[in-house]
Amino acid sequence: MRKVHVIGSLVLALAALLPGQATAASDALPSWNDGSAKRAIVEFVEKVTKPGSPDFVPVPERIAVFDNDGTLWCEQPVPVQLYFALDRVKALAPQHPEWKTKEPFASLLKGDLKTALTGGDHALLEILMATHAGMTTVEFEQIVKDWLATAKHPKTGRLYTEMVYKPMLELLDYLRAHGFKTYIVSGGGIEFMRPWTERVYGIPPEQVVGSSIKTKFEMRDGQPVLVRLPELNFNDDKADKPVGIHQHIGRRPIAAFGNSDGDLQMLQWTTAGPGVRFCLYVHHTDAEREWAYDRQSSIGRLDKGLDEAAAKGWTVVDMKKDWKVIYPFEKVKGE
Amino acid sequence: MRKVHVIGSLVLALAALLPGQATAASDALPSWNDGSAKRAIVEFVEKVTKPGSPDFVPVPERIAVFDNDGTLWCEQPVPVQLYFALDRVKALAPQHPEWKTKEPFASLLKGDLKTALTGGDHALLEILMATHAGMTTVEFEQIVKDWLATAKHPKTGRLYTEMVYKPMLELLDYLRAHGFKTYIVSGGGIEFMRPWTERVYGIPPEQVVGSSIKTKFEMRDGQPVLVRLPELNFNDDKADKPVGIHQHIGRRPIAAFGNSDGDLQMLQWTTAGPGVRFCLYVHHTDAEREWAYDRQSSIGRLDKGLDEAAAKGWTVVDMKKDWKVIYPFEKVKGE
Repeated sequence: MRKVHVIGSLVLALAALLPGQATAASDALPSWNDGSAKRAIVEFVEKVTKPGSPDFVPVPERIAVFDNDGTLWCEQPVPVQLYFALDRVKALAPQHPEWKTKEPFASLLKGDLKTALTGGDHALLEILMATHAGMTTVEFEQIVKDWLATAKHPKTGRLYTEMVYKPMLELLDYLRAHGFKTYIVSGGGIEFMRPWTERVYGIPPEQVVGSSIKTKFEMRDGQPVLVRLPELNFNDDKADKPVGIHQHIGRRPIAAFGNSDGDLQMLQWTTAGPGVRFCLYVHHTDAEREWAYDRQSSIGRLDKGLDEAAAKGWTVVDMKKDWKVIYPFEKVKGE
Repeated sequence: MRKVHVIGSLVLALAALLPGQATAASDALPSWNDGSAKRAIVEFVEKVTKPGSPDFVPVPERIAVFDNDGTLWCEQPVPVQLYFALDRVKALAPQHPEWKTKEPFASLLKGDLKTALTGGDHALLEILMATHAGMTTVEFEQIVKDWLATAKHPKTGRLYTEMVYKPMLELLDYLRAHGFKTYIVSGGGIEFMRPWTERVYGIPPEQVVGSSIKTKFEMRDGQPVLVRLPELNFNDDKADKPVGIHQHIGRRPIAAFGNSDGDLQMLQWTTAGPGVRFCLYVHHTDAEREWAYDRQSSIGRLDKGLDEAAAKGWTVVDMKKDWKVIYPFEKVKGE
């Protein structure tokens, strides 16, 4: 442990010395407008990282957890992973002639997403299992990488990995520069995220927590493989987010970032520990640059969470007011 | 990613400069006798960490996985966690008058472990669930810490956390000094290990993979808790060790360390990746200082693994010949 602390401190000392690693808040969060949200973030980080402060938190305990869909990248008009599943249904259709008449696949292949999803969770699960299982883990990783390299968002025509929130990328960097370990804790598929989170967010695969299907170890031609089975292993959403956090990380985060009621228990779990804690909700309020949705939305509903944030004094980001830019490719107004 | 690499490289450069961080093998592994095992370890580490070498592995991919029972600490005459369970049965007995006549508890309470375990896996599972479930995760962590602070090994009278292998502690340090991330991947309970692995091995909770029971998020008096349920979640052994590795780490290790057939698939999975890989079996050959057991042992059986190690050229540590000392409290011969 001693050595870990020494090295951690050295990294921080070094980070402060390096050009371009200046961590003054004004430099570290340039896409954030000055306001209460930015101020709350900076105040929290300064409090827990200042040696000798009563709120000081040692480096190994600086765990920050982030939801992904709607918190780090867009989730409208439908979550990215659903577009992936739909494209996989089309790609796999020639091997499944029965899908032409079998729901939910028949509607999907006609491009009628709405009818396909009238089957609810059962239909969704069928689509997921048909497209996410049956191959090895190595094969699936390549399928995800290949898809992300070319698939485009229907509204912007941009790669999905460009549809990430620039202010949140800065926040991830800012926290890491202050000794935080940043984790994703998402309802999305863990193996759908891992192939690209390191490149896009700087979050390595071992710091991604998500939903999963079961896998099975097998020998094929003398080589071990893990085969993805059409069986749910873990649904990392709502009350199971704290379960996933405990399972993967084994210590309670001191900061949590989400955007929907699906993140509420994660934020509650985070605040329930001793010492200073930080919780933040990204509130989608910008219909022009992104989307505006909250209490009534079927995707990323933020209703109870908004009430609890108000009651508990959590930070709520108003995307329209608090963020100078949303996407990295976007031009800053007036520049 | 760029920043991660830069910082990783700086840490390594710094580590080389610091006094006491000298990483010459002769200094880093003082409890290892010079021989083929020590040589193989050092050669592997030098190969994958030498910049410009064809076998060079970037820091983020330097993942090393270690079994715990019999690899990092002793597992005889029975695994430590079983002693914990037995002590918990005794402590909980007053609340369970029915145990006086109900197996496997009745035999346990009479001190007859052998009869208690004739019920096989079913009996073992019953003991585990009765002693490991029903409390919150925070309560369980405290129970484990309290027990480890006083419980003594029946043979040596030492704390269980002293019954760790000094050469392996040195190996963990040596690997970390060379940019490796060290993980435990054990059949033991993940929450039985996490409360002490950081202090004893320098392995933080988020780098511990193990067996688990299910937990459930609940609100109690307005505070969220995770309650441990008497239901198996994951059995991190044999063919499920690669499953656990993939689930928690999401990338394939380049080095794996075990001591039994229960680790075989983990070693196979590790070697199946591209590039240089390192696998090592700890072979218990020292009946005097520790225990001697392998092909016939019911605990920590090493049979198929020994054959595969020979066939594949994996490193096999002969504890009697290769290790100068076994436990940290032990005196070196001739000193």
